[in-house]
Parts: sequence; structure tokens; C-alpha cells
Amino acid sequence: MQQVYFDNAATTQIRDEVITAMTHVMKTSYGNASSSHSFGRTSKALIEKSRKAVASYLNVVASEIIFTSGGTEADNLILLSAVRDLKVTHIITSRIEHHAVLHTLDQLVKDYKVAVSYVDLKPNGKIDYLHLETLLKSENKTLVSLMHINNEIGNMLNMTKVSALCKANNALFHSDTVQSVGHYKMDLQDIQVDFLTAAAHKFHGPKGVGFAFIRKNSGLKPLIFGGEQERGLRAGTESVHNIVGLEVALKNAYEKLENETAYIKDLKQYFIHKIESDIPNATFNGKSGNMEKSTYTLVNVCLPIPPKKAAMLLFQLDLKGIACSKGSACQSGSNQNSHVLTEILSAEDLQKPSIRFSFSIYNTKEEIDYVVGVLKAFIN
Amino acid sequence: MQQVYFDNAATTQIRDEVITAMTHVMKTSYGNASSSHSFGRTSKALIEKSRKAVASYLNVVASEIIFTSGGTEADNLILLSAVRDLKVTHIITSRIEHHAVLHTLDQLVKDYKVAVSYVDLKPNGKIDYLHLETLLKSENKTLVSLMHINNEIGNMLNMTKVSALCKANNALFHSDTVQSVGHYKMDLQDIQVDFLTAAAHKFHGPKGVGFAFIRKNSGLKPLIFGGEQERGLRAGTESVHNIVGLEVALKNAYEKLENETAYIKDLKQYFIHKIESDIPNATFNGKSGNMEKSTYTLVNVCLPIPPKKAAMLLFQLDLKGIACSKGSACQSGSNQNSHVLTEILSAEDLQKPSIRFSFSIYNTKEEIDYVVGVLKAFIN
Repeated sequence: MQQVYFDNAATTQIRDEVITAMTHVMKTSYGNASSSHSFGRTSKALIEKSRKAVASYLNVVASEIIFTSGGTEADNLILLSAVRDLKVTHIITSRIEHHAVLHTLDQLVKDYKVAVSYVDLKPNGKIDYLHLETLLKSENKTLVSLMHINNEIGNMLNMTKVSALCKANNALFHSDTVQSVGHYKMDLQDIQVDFLTAAAHKFHGPKGVGFAFIRKNSGLKPLIFGGEQERGLRAGTESVHNIVGLEVALKNAYEKLENETAYIKDLKQYFIHKIESDIPNATFNGKSGNMEKSTYTLVNVCLPIPPKKAAMLLFQLDLKGIACSKGSACQSGSNQNSHVLTEILSAEDLQKPSIRFSFSIYNTKEEIDYVVGVLKAFIN
Repeated sequence: MQQVYFDNAATTQIRDEVITAMTHVMKTSYGNASSSHSFGRTSKALIEKSRKAVASYLNVVASEIIFTSGGTEADNLILLSAVRDLKVTHIITSRIEHHAVLHTLDQLVKDYKVAVSYVDLKPNGKIDYLHLETLLKSENKTLVSLMHINNEIGNMLNMTKVSALCKANNALFHSDTVQSVGHYKMDLQDIQVDFLTAAAHKFHGPKGVGFAFIRKNSGLKPLIFGGEQERGLRAGTESVHNIVGLEVALKNAYEKLENETAYIKDLKQYFIHKIESDIPNATFNGKSGNMEKSTYTLVNVCLPIPPKKAAMLLFQLDLKGIACSKGSACQSGSNQNSHVLTEILSAEDLQKPSIRFSFSIYNTKEEIDYVVGVLKAFIN
């Protein structure tokens, strides 16, 4: 049976070059990077080379990159320590952030009585920048946490604008960039963000490794205590093969970015055209139908299917070998509606099924023809 | 140059079978285990199969195994949540625990005002069980955190005795078993411990993955918040290849345990004999010279070398291709003495260099001859 993987926002296929590099590290460099003998130094050198490379892609210094077990851990580290150690008492975020941010904030409210403000959203999920500016007038020590690219609807934040607003109001700025690192170039000398997070498996790297960008002299302290790894900011023996895998994945992503972006953009454009011509009553959620104002990697389609029939949709797609999702993989086990779509869709549109299709270099137009054909047949 | 790796307590060489399994997973199963389509289900099935296998080796049920990024994270999860969510207000531990426990407790004292009691130690590092019993008479809700095998001196805790004492006094019992899982069989229906931790890289598995054993209905909550992975106890996309690597490593460890234990025990016995005959004034720290009362995997030797000359010892060993350590890898970067040896050695013995040599199936007696020969030449 044909298998089509259109769930690249959930996770991606690992590049062959990445697997080769990781396997080589596992076979040849098993020293503990904290050991002072030659086996340890070899591992340490691999990690520091990776850190330097990652830093160079973002135009920051190596010491500002802290490797973690993934994007979620990196978000938790930054948010917890901002409150516990930097004494942030007010956090501005939005209701369409990833649960790695929203659920962490729920816990911080319980444990540290931090105040959380949610910035207003336009009907298409766009941040109301005027409201953000109003919220920033708070007297309390404030951190803004807004993601760069929304993982469900692909909306893009104006990072330069938000970082400037934060600077002007003495607020810290954290952005979950899990969907954008490896997909967009970022120069962090231009964008004055304080904290970013990334996960390797979103850009054809391994699962279980990511990083936090933490700007120099931030004052952050660990989420995980123990040894002095990662300059004292993240205890635990480093996963050398995973860190090298992350670096090779990011290197490939950025070296091939122009061609690969063009290729994937073309796929998305083609998908939108096909939907528009074959399923005329379909609509695109958020800004995901707008090629200029959303990420080139995903589209979120609201399909004209009555609720009863809709219940069978994902099941039918799965039977046909098509992998896509209702929203974030992190909540796909549940039957609840996406918290993102619940915020931005009308009651009527929420009755219809919405599906996120997300693309990578391993996809083709033939796959799109197949998927839209299956959708069309299901609807008719 | 000859290379001898005698630092297996810091980390171990990955078994070929483990690397093969991990590479296969990375090539064939890249789905996000939280996704509900077939790609996701394949990954989910791999994780659940691994969980079940790991649970079976400890004679527990699968839901009691929570995969983490390593032993340090697992220790942090248990200790933090015991205080934050189970309302433990008193923790009994010892001053020779791993920093993953001691530094986490330092932070819990700051954040939650938890009281920490340190159990008395005998001169050889043995826990004073009578003192432990006295400390357990506390009225406060208490957790005991004592490691099974000390990573520096190899002393072994009587887990059955401590778990019975804890049960009798209504205290919770956590044990850092990072040095014993994969090296000793454990039946957790017999040993009534509440929480254990393990790290795959200590038993020839990959770095960056471990697990917490958390007994059913514990009431623990996450350290890392976000998605609903690991039954809601550990958010973040699962590192499928690392989890499978852990499982294959543990399977190999336990299936070959009898032969491999005998082989390594023989190496340690041989090492002790060689030291005793070639360096007669050397002594063994803790109980590590006692084959019955310490782990078969390591020995910690205090060498009769004056301080000035001693400063060059690790450097010389490194030059000769010998990897060993002063103590935990997690603190090897520093020039400080081991906190473990500082607790148990006399002022006079602390002036002499102490070295930990730790063994695995990949070591040989010829390597021991070489290493003891180098030590002897250095001393004379």
C-alpha cells in the first residue's frame, strides 16, 4: 500500500548523513565527555565542535547554546528559571502556544504565583500587537513567551517587532522556535530575543535532543541538577551521538536551505491549488493558506464534511496509508479539539474536521495528487 | 599506543547489538510515538515493547517504568515531585551520594525549605543503619534517598534492610541504582523500594536515556511539562532509538549476566592481587577491596605516592593511554577532591592520590598487567 507521510510538523525522517554520523560516534567515541582522559576529551571535542557549529548558524557564541533532551525540556528550563531565579512575576503569552509552554506556565502559576496574561488574537490567530504593547506596560518584571511559527496553523510571529517591543519595555523575550530552527535563517544579533528553543527531530535530526539559546549573562539556573555539564546549566551525561546528530542535521538544513525551501514551498502551493480546485468549499485555518504570511512547511485545512462523517476521516486516511494530524502530536491521543483551533475558529467551523498537512523534502506532488484524491472521494 | 579503558563506572562502550538496533530504528521508524497514524503507532509499539521488557527484568509492571533522558533527570523528577507533590518535608540521605541527588536536594532546601538529614557513615563508608533508624523516627513526612552501589567506592547498600526500615516507619524510599541496574538482578516485588533510577550508558547502552521506576499510585507529577508522553509523567517527544537501545542493552546485560559477572569479578580479583603484590603499601578505599562487600565492577585504590609527585599521576596515566578517574566523571573537570573520599578518608590518606579503576567485559588481564606495571614504574 502507498504510504504518504504528511506529518512533518510532528516529526521528520532522519537524513541518511545524520544516521551515518551518529552510528560512527556510537562506534568510536564512547567516552564520557566529563572525563579528563583521552576517551573523555574525544567526546567533549565532538560536543564543543557541534556547539560551535550550531552557534554559528544563529550568529551567536558557542556558550549561548545549551544542549537539552529536546524542545520541551528547553522551554521548561527557560520558563522555570526565569520565574525562580530571575524573579519574573508576570508572563505574557498566547492561548495558541504549544503545551510545552502553556502547561509549564500552569505549573508556575501554582508553584510561584506568577501572573499570566494572554495576548488577544485576531480571528486568523494573528497576535494583536497593540494589545501586547498594552500588556507590556506592567510594572512587574515581565517575560514574553510567543512562538515563532505556530505548529498547527503556521502563523509567523514578527520576531523583530516583538523583540523591539520587549526591549523598549524592559521585558525578557522567549520564543519557542521549534518549528522554525532549521527551516528559516535567523540572525540573533539582529533579533534581540533572549531565549530560543529547538528540537533536532523537527529538521531531520534525531529525537531526544534539542537546545536552548540563552543569551549571555542571563542568570538562568538549571532545571536538572547534578554534575557540571553544559556549563553548569544542564546536569546529566551528554548524549554525544544525539548532539552530533543534531549538528549534522542543522548543517544539512542550512547548507541546502535555499533549494529545499523552494522545493517544499512549491509542494505547499501545489497542495493549496489542488484543494481549491478539487474541494472548493474547503478553507484554510489561520494564515496557513497565505503563502506569504505562513510557514512554507504546513497547511491546515477545514473540510466541508458533516460531523458524523467527519468522525471517520482520520481513520479513513490512515487506512489509505496517509499520515497527517488533527493538531499537535502531543495531544493526538485525546479526542479533544485542538486548543489552537478552539481559540480561532467559529463554532460552525469547529464542527467541521480540520486537518494539518505538513511537508518535507521527502514528499512529492504525486503524493499530493493521491491525498487530495482520497479526500475528494471521501467527501463525495 | 596501547589504550586501556578502565573507567566503566563513568560510562561504557556501546554493545554492537545495541548500535545495530538503534540504527535500524532510526532508518525505519521515524514516526512520532504520539501520532495516531501508522508511522506513530510503529514508534509507540517499539517504546511499549521496550517498556514491557525493562519492567520484566525488574519484576514490575510496564506502567511503573518512565523513560527519561538519563539517571540524573530521573533522580531530579523523583526528588522534586516527592517534595512538591507528595509533600515530603524531610529527606534522609548520605554525604556520599551522587551529585544528581545532593545538588538537587540543595535546591529543594532553597525552594521548598525541606529538611535534609545526613545519615552517619562508618570509616569505610558503610551506612550506620542504627542512625538511619533513629532518623526515621521523625514525625515529618520522610523520604530516604540512598544509592544502591556507590559510584566511587563500590559500597553496596542493603536494599532489603533499608526498604523494610522505611516501610516500618512510613517513609518513602528512593535509590539511585545507576551503578547496579544491568549489573545485578533485582526483584522489586521482594525489595519494597518506591523509586529507582537507571542510565543506559552504564550498561553498554546509549547516552541520553534512562528510566525511573515509580511504584504504582505514587502520586508523582512531572519535572518537565508539556505533552502527555510517558503517561503524563514526562513531556517531550520520545527518543525512540535511544529507548530501544536501552532495552537491547538491558536485555543483553541480563541474559549474559552470570558469565559476564564471573568474567569481570575475576578481573577485579586479579587487579587486587596484582596491586597487593606489586604495590604493597597501596590500600583500597571504602569496601572496594572486599570482593564480597563491594560491587564486582570497580576498585578504588589509595596509592603510596607523595603529594608533589601525585599531581602528575593522572597525567602520566593518560600519556600511557590509560583511562581511569579520581572519582565521578561529573566532577572530574574540577581540581577538588572527591566529596566521597573527603567524607571517609583520614587527613593523611587524603594527601595521597586515590584512583578508581572500573571494569567491563571488554577488559582483559593483559590490560591489568600493563596498568599495574605503569603504576609501579611511576611509584619507583
